[in-house]
Amino acid sequence: MSEQNLRCILAERPTGWVEPRHFRMERVPVPEPGDGEVLVRNHWLSLDPYMRGRMSDAKSYADPVAVGAVMIGGTAGEVVASRDPRFKPGDAVVGMLGWQLYGVAEASTLRKVDTRHVPLAAYLGVVGMPGVTAWYGLNAICAPKAGETLVVTAAAGAVGGVVAQRAKAKGCRVVGVAGGAEKCRYVVQELGIDACVDYKAGDLATELKAALPQGADCLFENVGGEIFDALLARTNAFGRIALCGLISDYNAADPYRLKNLRMVLINRLNIRGFIVSDHADQWPAALQELARLVATGRLKYRESIAQGLDHAPEAFIGLLRGRNFGKQLVKLV
Amino acid sequence: MSEQNLRCILAERPTGWVEPRHFRMERVPVPEPGDGEVLVRNHWLSLDPYMRGRMSDAKSYADPVAVGAVMIGGTAGEVVASRDPRFKPGDAVVGMLGWQLYGVAEASTLRKVDTRHVPLAAYLGVVGMPGVTAWYGLNAICAPKAGETLVVTAAAGAVGGVVAQRAKAKGCRVVGVAGGAEKCRYVVQELGIDACVDYKAGDLATELKAALPQGADCLFENVGGEIFDALLARTNAFGRIALCGLISDYNAADPYRLKNLRMVLINRLNIRGFIVSDHADQWPAALQELARLVATGRLKYRESIAQGLDHAPEAFIGLLRGRNFGKQLVKLV
Repeated sequence: MSEQNLRCILAERPTGWVEPRHFRMERVPVPEPGDGEVLVRNHWLSLDPYMRGRMSDAKSYADPVAVGAVMIGGTAGEVVASRDPRFKPGDAVVGMLGWQLYGVAEASTLRKVDTRHVPLAAYLGVVGMPGVTAWYGLNAICAPKAGETLVVTAAAGAVGGVVAQRAKAKGCRVVGVAGGAEKCRYVVQELGIDACVDYKAGDLATELKAALPQGADCLFENVGGEIFDALLARTNAFGRIALCGLISDYNAADPYRLKNLRMVLINRLNIRGFIVSDHADQWPAALQELARLVATGRLKYRESIAQGLDHAPEAFIGLLRGRNFGKQLVKLV
Repeated sequence: MSEQNLRCILAERPTGWVEPRHFRMERVPVPEPGDGEVLVRNHWLSLDPYMRGRMSDAKSYADPVAVGAVMIGGTAGEVVASRDPRFKPGDAVVGMLGWQLYGVAEASTLRKVDTRHVPLAAYLGVVGMPGVTAWYGLNAICAPKAGETLVVTAAAGAVGGVVAQRAKAKGCRVVGVAGGAEKCRYVVQELGIDACVDYKAGDLATELKAALPQGADCLFENVGGEIFDALLARTNAFGRIALCGLISDYNAADPYRLKNLRMVLINRLNIRGFIVSDHADQWPAALQELARLVATGRLKYRESIAQGLDHAPEAFIGLLRGRNFGKQLVKLV
C-alpha cells in the first residue's frame, strides 16, 4: 500500500502529570493481516482515564504498555482487508487497535457494529466501554431503589452522564458533582438531573450538604480524593458505593489520604471497586439496552473531539485535567 | 432490700483517650421491677471497644450514653425477682443491663442461657456478641473458600480469636496480626493459626509481606490505621474485607488518613462495614453453632478478668490500649 500508518508511541513513563514529551509519533508501513486477522482503518480513537494506569509500571490489574510500544486504546473504524470469513472490507468495527491510523487485529477481538441508528463514535462511549461501565456499576453495585438518592462524580463525563440519566430513570433523586458551572448546567438542564455541585466553586462540604438534605444512599465514584472524602460524610446507613475511578489521584506523586474511612463502619457501607472488563458476560445485555436508548433518544451524551492523531496526547492530558466535556474522542479521518 | 446497687456513670465525654475521671461510681437503691420486668443481679460485665463510640456524641449508628447515665454494656447474671412469667429467680440470663450490680430490664430483652456445658461468662464473649460478630463477618462477608488466605487483626481478641479458628476450620491459610510476642505465640501455638505478625515488633510492611507470600483473599479488620493500610497493599484481586472495627482510631483526636484506597480499585475489593446488631435474624443459628463448638472443646478462647465494678474504668482503658488478652470481662460477684 502506498499510504503509511501513523502511530503514537509511549516514549517515556510519566511519574506525575503526563506531558507531551511522554509520547512520540512515528510513521511506519501499513501492516498486512495474517491468517484469521483483519486490517482496520481507524476512524475514531477513544481516550479514557484508565490509560494513565497503563503508562505506569506500578502494580495494577493489567500489564503496562511497554516503552516504545503503541499506546493502547479502544477504536472504531472500517475493515480494509480481511483474512477471516466473518469480516469483509467496509464493515464498521470496534476493537482495541490503539493510538494509530491502521491496525491489524485477530478477528475474534473485533465487534461488528450497526451504524444505521447509532453513530460509529458512540460505540466508543455511551454504547461502548464507558456506557457498560456505568450500566454495570449502577445495576450490579449501587442497585438503587426508586426514591433513594444517588450521587455520581464526574457527572458530565462519559460514564457519569450515563449513570446519572439511568438512575433518574429508575426513580432516584440524582445529584451530580462536576467541575465548573458549564458542566453543572449541562447535567441539570440537558440531562435532567436534580442537582449538580460544582467542586471548583467553593466550599464543597457545605454545598454537598445542601444538595443532599436526605444524604446519599448510593455513590458512583469516578474521582476520589477530597470529593470522595466529603461524600463519605454524606452517606446514609447501608449505602452502596461503586468505586469506578480515582482520577484525581492518577497524576499525584503521593495519593490523597482519606480521612473518613470510619463512615464505612458507622454507616455499614458496602464499597466495591470494579473494572468493567471483568464482566464480559454482562456486555451483550448492557450494549443492547444502551443502543436502544440512544437510538430512541432516551439517553443523551456529549463528545469532545480532537482532530487528528497528532492532537491525541494534548487531548489526553486535557482529559486528565478535566478539560473535556463528555466523552473524549480523537477523529482520525 | 437492704443491699444497695453500685453503678458506674458516664461523668464526662472524653475527646481523646479515655481517663478514669470520665467515669463516676455511685450507690443507689436496688431498683424494683415493674410489670413485665425482671430484676437481675449481674455476675459479669462485658467490656467492648464499641463502648468508646457510645461515650462520644459524634454521629454514629447508635445514640450516645447521656452524661450522668449508667454506661451501657452487655451483662450476664441471675434473676433476683421477676414480674414476667418467662423468668423466675435463679435463672441465668444475659442482657444489656450496663455497668452496674443490679439492673431491671424488660423481659423481652433478656435471654435465658444454659450454663451446664458453657460457662456463664462465655455468653458475653465467644458464645455472645463478639462470637456472633466473628461468625457473621466471616461467613456473610469474607466467605472464604478452602485454600484461600485470610488475615485477621486483633487476632488474640474476643472477636479475632473466633475468626481465626473458624477460618482455619474452613481450610484457609490464616494469618493473625496482634500486639506483642505473647499474643502472637498464643495465636499460633494455642489457637493453631498458621502465622501471626506482631505489629509492635518492627517493620510491619515487610513482616506482612513475608507472612503473606500468596497475598490475602480475605481480611477481617478490627483495628484500622496503619495496619489496615499495610494490609490493603497485600490484598489479592477480588478480595473481601469485613470492616468490623477501627479501634486504633477510637481515641485519636484526628483519624488516621488512609493512603492505599487505590488498592480497592486495582484489586476490585469488596469492603463492607457491619454492626452485628443489624443482623438479629442470624444470632440464633450463630449462637447454637458457637455453643456447640465451645461445649465440645473445638473453639478456644481466653479471658482477661477485672475484679469488681470499681476496676471497670481501668480495665476499659486497658482494652482500648490493647492491654487485655482475649475477652475483657469484669467480675461483679
